[in-house]
Amino acid sequence: MRVAVLGATGLVGREMVRILEDRNFPVTELRLLATERSAGEFIDFHDDPKLVEATSAEAFEDIDLVLSSAGGGPSKAWLPVAVKAGATCIDNSSAYRMEEGVPLVIPEINAEHARNHEGIIANPNCSTIQMVMALQPLHDLAGLKRVVVSTYQSVSGKGKSAIDELQDETSQLLNGIPYERRVFDHQIAFNCIPDIDVPVEDDYTREEWKMMVETRKIMDLPDLPITATCVRVPVFFGHAEAVFVEFERPIDIDAAREALNSFPGVTVVDDLANHVYPHQTATAERDEVYVGRIRPDRSVEHGLALWVVSDNIRKGAALNTIQIAEWLRDQKLLGS
Amino acid sequence: MRVAVLGATGLVGREMVRILEDRNFPVTELRLLATERSAGEFIDFHDDPKLVEATSAEAFEDIDLVLSSAGGGPSKAWLPVAVKAGATCIDNSSAYRMEEGVPLVIPEINAEHARNHEGIIANPNCSTIQMVMALQPLHDLAGLKRVVVSTYQSVSGKGKSAIDELQDETSQLLNGIPYERRVFDHQIAFNCIPDIDVPVEDDYTREEWKMMVETRKIMDLPDLPITATCVRVPVFFGHAEAVFVEFERPIDIDAAREALNSFPGVTVVDDLANHVYPHQTATAERDEVYVGRIRPDRSVEHGLALWVVSDNIRKGAALNTIQIAEWLRDQKLLGS
Repeated sequence: MRVAVLGATGLVGREMVRILEDRNFPVTELRLLATERSAGEFIDFHDDPKLVEATSAEAFEDIDLVLSSAGGGPSKAWLPVAVKAGATCIDNSSAYRMEEGVPLVIPEINAEHARNHEGIIANPNCSTIQMVMALQPLHDLAGLKRVVVSTYQSVSGKGKSAIDELQDETSQLLNGIPYERRVFDHQIAFNCIPDIDVPVEDDYTREEWKMMVETRKIMDLPDLPITATCVRVPVFFGHAEAVFVEFERPIDIDAAREALNSFPGVTVVDDLANHVYPHQTATAERDEVYVGRIRPDRSVEHGLALWVVSDNIRKGAALNTIQIAEWLRDQKLLGS
Repeated sequence: MRVAVLGATGLVGREMVRILEDRNFPVTELRLLATERSAGEFIDFHDDPKLVEATSAEAFEDIDLVLSSAGGGPSKAWLPVAVKAGATCIDNSSAYRMEEGVPLVIPEINAEHARNHEGIIANPNCSTIQMVMALQPLHDLAGLKRVVVSTYQSVSGKGKSAIDELQDETSQLLNGIPYERRVFDHQIAFNCIPDIDVPVEDDYTREEWKMMVETRKIMDLPDLPITATCVRVPVFFGHAEAVFVEFERPIDIDAAREALNSFPGVTVVDDLANHVYPHQTATAERDEVYVGRIRPDRSVEHGLALWVVSDNIRKGAALNTIQIAEWLRDQKLLGS
């Protein structure tokens, strides 16, 4: 398989290269593409330093698979070129997710959607992926009626510059040195910011809107009532979510635990009496979506409260992208 | 007024002394009480260093008002002694809050409850106070039907040792030095912990349970459906809350904004397009409860989503306690 990684020097791009290696994805040729500014860097792949090239139309010639995580602009600019050159593209940006004809895929949940693409398959938003991984087994059990979610999202979702800002601002504050912000609109060190991405309709942010519309599309529940508040917290890696779910039918707590734990990619970590539940520093660099604090929500007829944590860079981005590629390959839908 | 502060060397106790001074509460004598271990310290009051004494039965003789923030154990041990000696006690611990005959009071909301005490008036939990301050004006407008809340609570709610732990752990981690935890069950630096206070029934924590039962008692809504997930975040001061409210009747967003902003002690800070909303570092050491991100929740018939932030040590604890004392004094229900 001839593979191109678009946005190879970013946080997610680098993780994609690492996961291609870890999972022994059958790569015969790997092209690492980035902006002019990042070109010239080397990234190791199976102990072989690979040169990062500036993206160009020629770079997509003879490529079977493009894994893209370069942001909406570059995806819009380059993926049509790659598709025209014959490649299948899996895009981690939000540029194509809600477009007609673009499958939005979490392999454990709706892999079959990936069959009907027109060259581009979209990877969902990080906070959507981990929530839907927890919702699907519960929906199968008792039927979703309404979802309310509040997120605790790490700065890595905003890229490497945001990680640097949290680190620099924290350390300068602790040392009494004024810090000049470059990335966030407000202090992120020791603070929570309820503002991710840009404002859209109804005074929601686009991150919140994504969680609502992407969940409906992935789960094939176009009318699912769902609302979200998305908050950036001073954490480096991993997103956490407080999810309150209302069901159509009665739901038994033990059955819910069992359904979650037996769902591929989900692990239940739940023993409050012994302070056992998922938390971000424990889930970094892990592949699973972890669910804990599973308990009845007695404020509605059939309610459940959950706490869902996962590494936003892995299952929330790079890993899910490569799992989509693996599924396509297993179905013989990839390559020449 | 002869005033005793029980737990005077704690975070809230010190803030109480500062607020008594700032608001010129008519203190003729101030007794600062603490454990044996903390006795001997001096705390300034109107530029006069006051000696902290070890708590004893004699310390409550001739005292009109006891402001207590020493934790449940000391409150249980000493407040009955103080009441017997003729004092009125306002208790910031959770020891008496849900007891029959003990008013649980936020002066802006249910000051009249304070009239019927038997010596002890309870100050609600910090996360409850700020939420109820936002709920009451909205309830008056459209009738609460159900409340769902997720909290983002600062470490100061757990006392000074927790502040030290966040600071020390953060700075040692940034310097690559291992840190040995003394306060939290998990790393709090750059991490969120969904576990505040102890487990109670249904796998809820006591902090979550407090938000449910205290809200019902304060608002005189014994059957209000309400659920909560309470989370400790790596923030020093201030609690934030993502609140989703369902109402009995239609609620207009502008009317809700107006009702919130004109409620005493509440300020609306809400202009998402310009990144204006409350956040913890902006609310530290302020008296108000700030509400922003006010928007429709279209996942239910009459729904509203809010973001509520306040300084947990001030309105959430010390300030509210002294506001109760001020109300009692204004009603001539205090002193000899």
